[in-house]
Amino acid sequence: MAPNEIYQYSVISALMTGLSSASSSTTVSKLLSHGNLGLGTFESMDGEMVVLDGQAYQLKSDGSVGAAPETAKIPFGSVTEFVPQITKKSSLEDKSQLMQLVADLLPNARNHFVVIRVDGRFDTVKCRTIPPQAYEGEHLTEVGKRQTVKEYHDVEGTIVGFRSPQWSEGVSVVGIHVHFLNTDRSFGGHVLAVRADSEVSLGVAACTNLQIDLPQSQEFGARVLEDDAEGLKKVEG
Amino acid sequence: MAPNEIYQYSVISALMTGLSSASSSTTVSKLLSHGNLGLGTFESMDGEMVVLDGQAYQLKSDGSVGAAPETAKIPFGSVTEFVPQITKKSSLEDKSQLMQLVADLLPNARNHFVVIRVDGRFDTVKCRTIPPQAYEGEHLTEVGKRQTVKEYHDVEGTIVGFRSPQWSEGVSVVGIHVHFLNTDRSFGGHVLAVRADSEVSLGVAACTNLQIDLPQSQEFGARVLEDDAEGLKKVEG
Repeated sequence: MAPNEIYQYSVISALMTGLSSASSSTTVSKLLSHGNLGLGTFESMDGEMVVLDGQAYQLKSDGSVGAAPETAKIPFGSVTEFVPQITKKSSLEDKSQLMQLVADLLPNARNHFVVIRVDGRFDTVKCRTIPPQAYEGEHLTEVGKRQTVKEYHDVEGTIVGFRSPQWSEGVSVVGIHVHFLNTDRSFGGHVLAVRADSEVSLGVAACTNLQIDLPQSQEFGARVLEDDAEGLKKVEG
Repeated sequence: MAPNEIYQYSVISALMTGLSSASSSTTVSKLLSHGNLGLGTFESMDGEMVVLDGQAYQLKSDGSVGAAPETAKIPFGSVTEFVPQITKKSSLEDKSQLMQLVADLLPNARNHFVVIRVDGRFDTVKCRTIPPQAYEGEHLTEVGKRQTVKEYHDVEGTIVGFRSPQWSEGVSVVGIHVHFLNTDRSFGGHVLAVRADSEVSLGVAACTNLQIDLPQSQEFGARVLEDDAEGLKKVEG
């Protein structure tokens, strides 16, 4: 794929509905063939995925972090060959300032996707990691109720993810969706809050091409998918 | 692209919002490089587009039909290299029976896209064609109020289009969206109603891959897109 084109496996409404069994999944190696930066989750929603510099990491709710095997199954993932179009150094008061910075840097991309990467030392990163589904098909909002939340202070690492446009509701997480991984690759997760009093390095790119591969399983084809914007905001916002 | 992968230029919510100027458009030749069957509209929403056997036709609201020049601009279009997976001969009571037939033939594709092609002699085809926007940015629901509606009887031709899944609201026209062109390529339009007392030939294929190219214009990037499911149903349902 060309730089900053987004490849996505499945749609967020399928994940919300709990579709994350092996039959509705692709593999890490297939996902990585489409991009070197991104995020996602694993079979049975077992943790958060961070794709960074071409390597996929699995961040489990027990706090463990490891390189994901190439054969690991994933029910949802978004990646891109990231080439930053604009870079900026800035402190970060909170997650909404990150959102504002992205909007200011790419004012004419409100209906495009935006790839986001932030490198540096953060005073606070509050992360959540989801545990595996308690049973096949458990909805993401239910899984989210058992999530682990941890706050890390004075840590170095990278935030990666996307800002998705309003029209992509049902497809992606509308707004900013970012995951964190520390430099030592030992902790991280889905970013709930962030603060950096000193400057960190922000890189962004607007994406005008999206490719979606849908699971071909009978399970995916037969289920009624949830269009639950409120629930999604709670668990992925 | 591989057979039955869908290529789409722009998203339906952009078209609803009236984004169909030259700067937010691609060309017929670029669209045709991705598929040989499909539908769409033209710059300033000047009529309906039918793509059939690799040729794009422009069906204007004054009743004229012509081969669209390769350089003609289009703000929205969906095409695929169609290879039918299932074919069936059937009479058609109405449009909802067509919808039911598609659902029966592909029961496990409710979250996939489906390509539809129907060839034969139809007792009734009721078509609408939209006129050009009265001013740049005029919303599709407003343009639709000036549409031409015609009912054709005992006509031979082809219906082409897509069934799009619920999760694709904002992206595509959810449900069945089909256009008609008669065999002599002299009339047709967006299909509002259809009836075939004798058998016609239906071909369908489930699509598990969608590629979206977004307009790169400032106009596209800056506008607030309408998420108007009700309005869309009225004008494209």
